[in-house]
Amino acid sequence: MERLLASFEKIKTVHPYVHHITNAVTMNDCANMTLAAGGSPAMAHAKEEVAEMICQMSALVLNTGTITQDAFEAMLIAGKAANENGIPIVLDPVAVGATAFRKRVNEALLEALDIAVIRGNASEIMTLVGVSSGRGVDVAVDLVFDEEKVMAFASEKQTVVATSGAVDFMTDGRRCAYCHNGVAMLSEITGTGCMLASVIGVGVGAGNDAFDSALLASVMIGIAGEEAYAAVNGERKLGTFRVQLFDAMATMSSEKINALGRIDVDGACF
Amino acid sequence: MERLLASFEKIKTVHPYVHHITNAVTMNDCANMTLAAGGSPAMAHAKEEVAEMICQMSALVLNTGTITQDAFEAMLIAGKAANENGIPIVLDPVAVGATAFRKRVNEALLEALDIAVIRGNASEIMTLVGVSSGRGVDVAVDLVFDEEKVMAFASEKQTVVATSGAVDFMTDGRRCAYCHNGVAMLSEITGTGCMLASVIGVGVGAGNDAFDSALLASVMIGIAGEEAYAAVNGERKLGTFRVQLFDAMATMSSEKINALGRIDVDGACF
Amino acid sequence: MERLLASFEKIKTVHPYVHHITNAVTMNDCANMTLAAGGSPAMAHAKEEVAEMICQMSALVLNTGTITQDAFEAMLIAGKAANENGIPIVLDPVAVGATAFRKRVNEALLEALDIAVIRGNASEIMTLVGVSSGRGVDVAVDLVFDEEKVMAFASEKQTVVATSGAVDFMTDGRRCAYCHNGVAMLSEITGTGCMLASVIGVGVGAGNDAFDSALLASVMIGIAGEEAYAAVNGERKLGTFRVQLFDAMATMSSEKINALGRIDVDGACF
Repeated sequence: MERLLASFEKIKTVHPYVHHITNAVTMNDCANMTLAAGGSPAMAHAKEEVAEMICQMSALVLNTGTITQDAFEAMLIAGKAANENGIPIVLDPVAVGATAFRKRVNEALLEALDIAVIRGNASEIMTLVGVSSGRGVDVAVDLVFDEEKVMAFASEKQTVVATSGAVDFMTDGRRCAYCHNGVAMLSEITGTGCMLASVIGVGVGAGNDAFDSALLASVMIGIAGEEAYAAVNGERKLGTFRVQLFDAMATMSSEKINALGRIDVDGACF
Repeated sequence: MERLLASFEKIKTVHPYVHHITNAVTMNDCANMTLAAGGSPAMAHAKEEVAEMICQMSALVLNTGTITQDAFEAMLIAGKAANENGIPIVLDPVAVGATAFRKRVNEALLEALDIAVIRGNASEIMTLVGVSSGRGVDVAVDLVFDEEKVMAFASEKQTVVATSGAVDFMTDGRRCAYCHNGVAMLSEITGTGCMLASVIGVGVGAGNDAFDSALLASVMIGIAGEEAYAAVNGERKLGTFRVQLFDAMATMSSEKINALGRIDVDGACF
Repeated sequence: MERLLASFEKIKTVHPYVHHITNAVTMNDCANMTLAAGGSPAMAHAKEEVAEMICQMSALVLNTGTITQDAFEAMLIAGKAANENGIPIVLDPVAVGATAFRKRVNEALLEALDIAVIRGNASEIMTLVGVSSGRGVDVAVDLVFDEEKVMAFASEKQTVVATSGAVDFMTDGRRCAYCHNGVAMLSEITGTGCMLASVIGVGVGAGNDAFDSALLASVMIGIAGEEAYAAVNGERKLGTFRVQLFDAMATMSSEKINALGRIDVDGACF
C-alpha cells in the first residue's frame, strides 16, 4: 500500500501527458477521466504526425474498440516511436476474441511493440493467452480463468497483465495482486474499462512501476465506483452514477486510497 | 398496452446485443442508452470485420448522421450479413434530405437491405417517401406530413416507419399507432433521435415485433423525457436534463409504462 | 456591453445552424453546447457532401484536434463553399505547434480561406503568429504572449484572433478586448476551448460582428464556468462541474451577462 500511495502522489507532481489512439465511443470519457486522475489527455491518430507527437508525451494508450486498418497502422507507428523513446504503452485489446481481424491486429501489436501493461476483461485476456475466444466486450460468465497461464504469458511477453472483473487480477509473471474494489454497476455504463486503461496510462506516464500502476488504477476506479454507487443509494440511476464517478475520481486522495483500498499482493492482504 | 409490457419484460430476459454503425457525435450516448434500456452495445465499423461481428449480435442499428463512403460500405456489408442471419436492422436516415450523397446512401441501403424499422423525424421520412426534401436534422415547421403516403411506403418496403415529432407516429402499412409521450426539451439536447433508434434496436434485438418495438421505444424515451423534465422543474437546465434522461431510462419499469404511457393504436386509445 | 447584449438577443431570434468539422473527442460536447447557446449543430465531414451541406448553414467551425488528411481536405472544400456563400468560418487550430503536419494543415487553411475568427490558447496563437512552437493543447506556463504581434497578424489576415487564457484577449488588429470571466477549472475538463469556438460560431452564425461574437462567447463561457464552479462550491467535482456548465449556458440571460460580464474594450472597463 505504501508503494501505491507514493505512486498516487507522484502523479500529482508529474501531471503526465497521456496520448491515446482509442475507440470513438469512449474518447471523451477517457479524456475526462485522464484529467480527473491527474493527467492531461492527447488524442490524435493521423499517420502523418503520431510519431512526432508521441515524443512529447509521457505514455501511450492503445485501444482496439473501434479499430480500423488505418488506426492499426497509426498505432504501429506511434507504438514504435514510443518504444524508441522509452515511453510506456498500455494496450486495451477490446473484444479481441470477436473477430479474426481484431485478433490479428492485437497479435501484431503485441508482436511489434513492447507493451508495459495489457488491460482487458477475463475473456479478452483468455483469448490473448490462447485459452478461449470471447464473444465480445463483456465478460463471459462461464469462463474458466487460468491465472497460471496468464502469469506465464506476462512472463514471456515481459509485460503486466491486468484483468478486470468482479475481482481485478494483476500479474507481471512474478508478482500477483488482486483488487477487491469496485461495484457491478461499473459495467452498466460504457467505457469504464477504457477509462481504467487511461488511468493506468496516467500512472506509468508519471514514471511509476507498471505493476503498481495497474494495481493503483484498479483501486482508484474501484473506489470511485463505490463512491458513485453510494451517491445513487444503489439505485440504477446510470446517468448520475456516471457523473459521480468523475467527481469521485477527481477528488481521490491518499487518505481515501489508504482507508478504502482492498488489495491482496502475493497472498498478503492489505 | 399488454403487448408493450410483455415486450418490455422480454428485453430484461434476453439482454440483447445491439451493434451500431452510427454517427460519431452521439456514439457514446447511444451506447449508454442501450445499456440503460437493458441491452449491451457494440460498435465497430471496419469492413474487415463487421460481417463476422454482426453474426454474434441480436440487432443492427445504422445511422447516417456522419456518413462517409467507407461507413456506407461497412453498413452494406454488415446489413447483408444481418439479413442473411435473420438479425433485424433499424435505419436512422439522419438528415437524408440535406444532400444528394446522403439521399443516395439511404436509398441504396433501403434498396439493398431488408430494414425492420426506419426511424426518422417528419422531414426525413417525407424525404424518403418522396414528398419533400428536408433541410437537415430538425423537423421543418411547415411540413405537411402525409400519413397515407407513409403507410403506403411502409407497406411497399415491408418495414415499420417510426416518425418522431410532437406526437410520434408508427406504421407498418397496416397498423398505425401514435405516442403522445415526450417533451419538447428532448430536441434541445443532441442525439435523442439516435438514442430512440438504439432503444428500438434493443426491442427488436430481444425478439419483439418491430411495430411493437418502435412503439415501446417511443413510450420509453417519452416517459424518460417527461421524468427528466420534471426533475429540472421545466427549467432549461440541459446538462441536468440529459443526466436525468439516462437515470429515468435506467429505472424504467412496467409499472411506469402502464401508468404513464399515452398511446393510440388504430384509433383505440390506451 | 450594449453591443454584446444586442448580439446575445439576436442569437435567440436567428437560432443559427452551425456546421462543424471538428475533433472526435469533443464532438458531442460541441453539439450540446451549440444547442445550449441557442444554435443548432450540424456535423458531417464526407467530401462528397460538405459543400452542398454548408450552403444551408449559418456558420462553419473547423477544429484540428484530431485532424487527418481526409478531414483536412473536407475542411478545404467546406471552407471554400462557406467563403463563396458569405458564411463565416471559425478556426480552432488545436495543438498547431505540436507537429509539422498540424502546422502545415493550419497554415494551408489560413492561406486558402477567409477566416472570421481564430480561437486558440496563447501557445497556439503564438505558434500561428510565428513567435513560438507550443507543445500541445495546453497553455505553456512561461510563454511570452506578444499582443502587438497578434494585432499585426489579425490585421494582415483580416480576421479576429481570440486568445483563451486566465484572461481572454481578442483583437481584430484595430480593436482589443479582454474578458476576465472564467475559472481555472474550465481547463480541467476536456473540450471547453472547442465549445468556446462553437459558441463563437453561434454568434457569427446569427449575423453578429466577429469581434463582438468572440467577446460575447468568452463572456458566456466564462460566466457559465463561474456559475458551475459556485455550484460545486469550488470542490474538484469535475463530473458535476461539467453538467452545471451546460445548465448555466442553457439558462444564460441578458441580465446575467450585464451583471456578471467583466470586460475591457480598448482600455475602457465595463
